[in-house]
Amino acid sequence: MTFSEYLNRQQQRIDEALQRWVPPESTPPESVHKAMRYSLFAGGKRIRPALCIAAAEAVSDNPEGIESAACTLELIHTYSLIHDDLPAMDDDDFRRGRPTCHKVFGEAMAILAGDALLTLAFQVLAQIPCDDGRKVRLIEELAVASGAVGGMIAGQVHDIEGEGKHPNASLLEAIHHAKTGALLRASLRMGGFYAGADDEQLAALSCFGRHIGLAFQIVDDLLDVEQPSEALGKTAGKDARQRKITFPAVYGLERSREMAEEERLRAHLALKPFNDRAERLREIGDYIVKRKA
Amino acid sequence: MTFSEYLNRQQQRIDEALQRWVPPESTPPESVHKAMRYSLFAGGKRIRPALCIAAAEAVSDNPEGIESAACTLELIHTYSLIHDDLPAMDDDDFRRGRPTCHKVFGEAMAILAGDALLTLAFQVLAQIPCDDGRKVRLIEELAVASGAVGGMIAGQVHDIEGEGKHPNASLLEAIHHAKTGALLRASLRMGGFYAGADDEQLAALSCFGRHIGLAFQIVDDLLDVEQPSEALGKTAGKDARQRKITFPAVYGLERSREMAEEERLRAHLALKPFNDRAERLREIGDYIVKRKA
Repeated sequence: MTFSEYLNRQQQRIDEALQRWVPPESTPPESVHKAMRYSLFAGGKRIRPALCIAAAEAVSDNPEGIESAACTLELIHTYSLIHDDLPAMDDDDFRRGRPTCHKVFGEAMAILAGDALLTLAFQVLAQIPCDDGRKVRLIEELAVASGAVGGMIAGQVHDIEGEGKHPNASLLEAIHHAKTGALLRASLRMGGFYAGADDEQLAALSCFGRHIGLAFQIVDDLLDVEQPSEALGKTAGKDARQRKITFPAVYGLERSREMAEEERLRAHLALKPFNDRAERLREIGDYIVKRKA
Repeated sequence: MTFSEYLNRQQQRIDEALQRWVPPESTPPESVHKAMRYSLFAGGKRIRPALCIAAAEAVSDNPEGIESAACTLELIHTYSLIHDDLPAMDDDDFRRGRPTCHKVFGEAMAILAGDALLTLAFQVLAQIPCDDGRKVRLIEELAVASGAVGGMIAGQVHDIEGEGKHPNASLLEAIHHAKTGALLRASLRMGGFYAGADDEQLAALSCFGRHIGLAFQIVDDLLDVEQPSEALGKTAGKDARQRKITFPAVYGLERSREMAEEERLRAHLALKPFNDRAERLREIGDYIVKRKA
């Protein structure tokens, strides 16, 4: 199977899991379920769940049911996009190529749809078919990575508070590490936990996650500068206009490109203990760095 | 111990648990932790955690550590108040006698503080000192009760969508049942799970929860009409101005008062299987109906 076929297969598997776990639009109250599904099924690349599945596959041969655990990462990621796009936050009108959730359903419904996706992620993890010990570990990992102490919410706070401040490397590090890094790292570790990884394997997955997370954010910042809105499916050039602290703002374009490549190679190195078993993880890592949207 | 002493003792115990589980204000990023604590330690009555503890005590003699599980109900309740008070939702300036979270910290920070409290509730339940099986059951119960299918979020959606509609009993039932009822019922069931309740005991706690939840909402609606803002610590008379569907709007004041009393008596009846062991639960039930704020 080529990488492109593999990734398509995983995206399909993740979408099927989401279809099973997320209530249909006809569930009352319909409005909130429509809003949840509108943002969830908007052509996302499913990178976090794909990393989770590939990490589990690097550890064990057939981690059955992993797609149910993996899809909770997309629930969290989508809730964070809905809330980040709100007028009081980043105030974005477009996302994944179409109007943002609050533009279609109104602000109140967007806030509630985000809350509902966040809540649903933990419900799903409590209900997936695996033993209680693993469920608890997955729930703790996801909650900490999404939370306000070094997790995704901390990153969003740093990001908002950094707007207009003088760009500097340490603030940039704090923002990226928490905002996208924590959830990407958790994606890999959750896959590892699920498949029964030992401590050495978990450490390798965490290390891979740290470097690929950094690469991901650098590329995200570069794309915002280099690509037109149509290619991104969201408003381009916003970072500069909102005076966000980004890698290009701190290091310039050329050095940022070099740094992304350095992080990609460090990520590859981290996977050494897995040998050939981590080929798909390496490929997803390369895809993250070379993507154009 | 009189009931008032008992309730004070529980409130203190719950506040101590919250102090332990919620990161201090000095945790970076400080702004979001300040906002979380501002709303959390604002003199709430801690009714949901108190019901959880009293339910556990009705089942077992000394349910050690129950306050940690119970305090997660206050995390969820407080997040829901912060988000409900936002300008896009109920647009309230006062809560628990002081300016609402977004008035003090801004809308973006209020959204994030709510998200963080919601996330923290599940982290705490994954980390409390009890066996994994009980943790998973508590997490599932809390997630479902807070969620968009018959849970708190569903209630908030019905409530918003009901504004200005002709008041009718079935819509009122759907709103109340989900908006306040689901979390109150979960408070009791979580206490029961924690203490190892059998099916009969859980059914009794659920039944008590259903009736006392209904009584709670009727009294809440009555207080909004009858009490001044100063006594409530929040803006009084808002239901009528926002044309909310309430018990007084559907049944009138006198019949609503009768209904609250009927529900209180039904709640008492539900506790029969516990005999004397449920005395504190009965007292909290009476307190809920007879409160003036």
